[in-house]
This record gives sequence, structure tokens and C-alpha cells, in this order.
Amino acid sequence: MESDFVGQLIRQLPRDRRLEVPPGDDAAVLRPTPNSRPVITVDLLTEGVDFLLQGHEGTAGFPPAATPAQVGKKAVAVSLSDLAAMAAVPEAVVVAVALPRHGGRVIADELTAGVMAMTDAYGVTLAGGDTNSWDGPLVISVTALGSVAAGHAWRRDRAQTGDLIVVTGPVGGSLLGRHLNVEPRCREAVAIARQFTVHAAIDISDGLALDLSRLTAASDVGGVIDLKAVPVHPDAERLAALQPATGKTPLEHALGDGEDFELLLAMPAAEAIRLVATPPSELVAGSSMRPAIIGEIVAEPGLEGKATDGSKHPLAAKGFDHAFE
Amino acid sequence: MESDFVGQLIRQLPRDRRLEVPPGDDAAVLRPTPNSRPVITVDLLTEGVDFLLQGHEGTAGFPPAATPAQVGKKAVAVSLSDLAAMAAVPEAVVVAVALPRHGGRVIADELTAGVMAMTDAYGVTLAGGDTNSWDGPLVISVTALGSVAAGHAWRRDRAQTGDLIVVTGPVGGSLLGRHLNVEPRCREAVAIARQFTVHAAIDISDGLALDLSRLTAASDVGGVIDLKAVPVHPDAERLAALQPATGKTPLEHALGDGEDFELLLAMPAAEAIRLVATPPSELVAGSSMRPAIIGEIVAEPGLEGKATDGSKHPLAAKGFDHAFE
Repeated sequence: MESDFVGQLIRQLPRDRRLEVPPGDDAAVLRPTPNSRPVITVDLLTEGVDFLLQGHEGTAGFPPAATPAQVGKKAVAVSLSDLAAMAAVPEAVVVAVALPRHGGRVIADELTAGVMAMTDAYGVTLAGGDTNSWDGPLVISVTALGSVAAGHAWRRDRAQTGDLIVVTGPVGGSLLGRHLNVEPRCREAVAIARQFTVHAAIDISDGLALDLSRLTAASDVGGVIDLKAVPVHPDAERLAALQPATGKTPLEHALGDGEDFELLLAMPAAEAIRLVATPPSELVAGSSMRPAIIGEIVAEPGLEGKATDGSKHPLAAKGFDHAFE
Repeated sequence: MESDFVGQLIRQLPRDRRLEVPPGDDAAVLRPTPNSRPVITVDLLTEGVDFLLQGHEGTAGFPPAATPAQVGKKAVAVSLSDLAAMAAVPEAVVVAVALPRHGGRVIADELTAGVMAMTDAYGVTLAGGDTNSWDGPLVISVTALGSVAAGHAWRRDRAQTGDLIVVTGPVGGSLLGRHLNVEPRCREAVAIARQFTVHAAIDISDGLALDLSRLTAASDVGGVIDLKAVPVHPDAERLAALQPATGKTPLEHALGDGEDFELLLAMPAAEAIRLVATPPSELVAGSSMRPAIIGEIVAEPGLEGKATDGSKHPLAAKGFDHAFE
């Protein structure tokens, strides 16, 4: 069942040599990278939870509302970030949307433009789509397909005691707008994987502490974060100042906000030190990556924060929780 | 961002040898079938459009409401049917859901059971999931990944003048309940592809006439359907009797209802004749397939129906339309 609108747009694209059968048929047939493994991931974003659509936001003005194009870009970015966390080269995406029946055509146009801006920027094939209309809010699901050499995918369950923990850039306060302009670390991940030893990796979607706790739990280890080493994004400072009633410090925003889509890497100490000493532009031309060592992997399970006085305290693995009843 | 509930369930599954990195990481890494091409397709189903959920149906009692398990099964079946239409062997699915916040846990349990019943039945790996909760209706998106030998995928744009048109079983009236118990023709498609020449194929999701018109339009040909040869399902007779006010005949239901998920094949005449003469159980043990020749491909674009008196009339390519404004 290849309906439709996105499908029609895709068929107008120049033929991609990575496609043996292009979109518009019941399914797309890809030409895989030789000697590689397919890597697959899916993320679904819903209006009201993952984004507010312009014209439908609340009166608070925060978080900022998204244009349909930003929603399309973000949906692709979030799935590509999962591929980055596996050190996989992104190859293709397929996109499924449920559009509000009224106004859906305009939303579809802009959304598709956003999707294509992202697939263009990351050299990814838009391999298919399914467009639906309904009387509900906007929903978009992006499945990303990447490739990685056999045995070379970064996993989250291979961190080792003594590894240093690296974050690829400053975090916190992304809801002020960065969450709508996500730049997944795809090229950086592939470049790091080629030149450095990485034991485990995860991307920060739900919050540094929460995502790090997932990595350490999967690896049966723990982590100690050197709190003064955490690169706090200026947006975390701004958000703390904007919302004094929450009582959250900039550091707490950095540890808990999520939607940063930087990578957390557990690396042998010498490799981590070598990575932060390497100019990012030597790895990827024009990269905005600013890797920092923020702590170490320890044998004792759980997460601890180390204060400036050297004292350690348990760190709550807070972050965005996909709760339901 | 691999959250959650479906993820947790998946991690309890026995390890599938086709997975190098199992679900639960940021993405799954597959071991591809050697010398094959990946085939990818996505479908998204929304409550209220593609199904009514039990307890939330209208008062009419028609179409019948679905259990969450049936929704899960159907969502997988619809995507697998797209792979069947490419003659691809189904390998893996990833599933993304948006669950109503209230009652979502129960729905998630049953939905996942339905998804797994289908992946078990079709020998497919459940390679990942993304579970979301929101204040909206149920949405489920299934991406299916299959494999096919290079150059061997069935396309919809290669039908040739003189081909006979085969449908793999009786059609119409599926909304009486068959639409919730879809059996995609995956095994049949792969078996037919091995033993017969097929020029073009599509699955019937939106209606025989509409989907056939897509195949003929993509192939720059036309089709003439021998109306008395169309295998009308008993459900089409029942539905016509149940809804006399629509004025639709059983044949019109057969041509327009959709949700049949039988395949339409354009085959060289001798091959089509050989296929319908072959007992389906010789192709696939236990198959319910009942292929029938229903017409032929002609050079003149458009669809025509041939009546019993031999007269031909244009056939409207009616079916389910994914309209929005």
C-alpha cells in the first residue's frame, strides 16, 4: 500500500543509484553497501508530546512551536542520531505520517520539504513513504536504515571499568530551540569509529543522566560524573534564569533536559584523551563537535556525581519519561 | 532513542540468529541474507480510519471493532503484504506506536501479542520498537524489511500487452471481518516467483480496480477485466445484502472494497494458465490461495470491464482514497 502524496513527491526525485527499485512501488529495493550489515531503527513523534505545531501551541510560548518543516527535519534527525549511536553510515529512511484532514496538504508540503532538507544534508535516500489523513493531530514515524561493518557497531552494553566517559558537546536547555534544529552526529560517529576505540555508545535523547544510566546498566557497570566537567550549554543557563520557579540549576538542566542528541561514549582512557585533543575539524570538516571527558566507568552499579570538593553523591537518572498508565 | 515497553518485551525474546545486535540498543544490526537486496516498506494505521478499537466503536456495529491484538496483527500483515507484492522474503519488522495515555498499558500488552503472533507465523524478526504515549488515539507504524535476489523483485511497472491478469483469491466484503485477519501472500509470492514468470505485481489494499489501475498506469498499458471471471467473495454477497441502500452489487464490492490483500499479477498467458492449473498446496503447504485469471493487459491505457455479452465499458478505478484537504 504505497499511497499518495509523499510517494508522489518522492517519484519526482532524481534517481538514486542506491535504489534498484525506486519508491512508488509496493516497497523500495536497495543496493546495499558491500560487506556491510543493515542497521535499523524507528522513532515516532506525536504533536503535543514531541513538538507543538505553530498555530496550535499554548499561550505560554514555551517550548517554542515548530513549523511542519522543522517537524520533518527533527523526525529524520532523531532516527539518524540512533544510527550515529551505532557508528552506522546512514543509507535510507522511510517516512510514515498521519496528517490532520484539515490543512493537511499545506502541512504535508512543508513537512516533506523538511524531511528532504535533512536527507539531502546527510546523503540519505528517501526510500518510501505512507501518507494518511485523519481527524487527529500530526504524527510522523521515521525508520532509518544504515550500514556498518560486521562486528563494528557501537553497542551500549560493552562499557568497561576504567573507561572514560566522553560527551560530544555541551548539553541542556535544548527546549529553547535547539531541539528543533538537531544535527545528529552521524559523520562524527563514523569518523571516530574509524580512528578510535570506543567500547560503548548511546545518544542523548532523554537526558544525559538517564541515557548514561541506560548505558551503564546495559553494561553491568556504573558511572561517576565529574560535575564540574559537564559542558553546560548557554541555553541551560538561559533556561534556568527564565524559569527560576523550577529551582533547577543550569547543571541540572544539562544533566536532565534531554533532546541534545550529542553522543555519550565509553572509551579506553588513552583513546578518550586522544579524542578530546584532536581538533574536530580534522575528523569531519566543519564539525561543531566539542568532545569533553565528563567522568569514568566504575565497577559499582549506579550513577554518582563528584562535586568540586571531591565528595560523591548518587545521581538521579532523571530525564524524559515515556510514561503511560 | 529506544524507549520502553515494546523494547522490554523484545529483549525477553529468544535471541534470533539473524540479529548481530539485538533490539534494546539504539538500533538493531541484522545479518543479511547473502547475495540479496534489502527491500523496505512502511505502513501506518490510525484508529478511526484504518480500524475501530473495541469499546470506542460507533453504535452501528459495522465495520466490526478490532481488539488491540488484531490491530497489531493487521499492522504487521499490511506491511508484509507489500513485501509479498515484491516477491521479497520477509526478514524483519520494526514497530512504532502511539498509545492512549489512559489504558495504554493494557493496549500495549495485547498489541504486542498480536504483533508477535504475526512475526512468529511469518518467521520474521521483531528488530525494534518505539513506544510513545499521548492523549490521542492509537497509531501504529510497521516498517518491514525483506530480501530479494538482485533484479528479481516484482515491480508494478513492467506489465506487458498480452499478459493475463491473475488475482490470488476471491475479493470483496472484507470489512465484514476478513480485514482484521489478513494473511499476506508472502510464501505464495516467493514460491510463484521461483517457478513462474511474473511481469508485474501489486497487492490489493485499496480495491481491485484502483490497485490494478495503479499497475497499468505505472506500466503505461491498460487492462480489460472479464467481469464474470472476477472471484466474488461470499462476504461481498453478504455485504451487498446487508447494505441494500448503497445499491452496490456484490461485483462492485469485489472491485472496489479493498483490504483484501490478495495479489494482482500480470503474467505471460501460458504462465498464468499454468499457475491456475497448479494446486496451491504444491506451491505452499496449506495455502488458501485460489488464483484466477480475470482479464488481460492491453496497449490502450485505462481499465475496461467486459460484460457477459462481450461489450466493454470503462471501469471506474474506485477504492479507498486517502484524501485530505
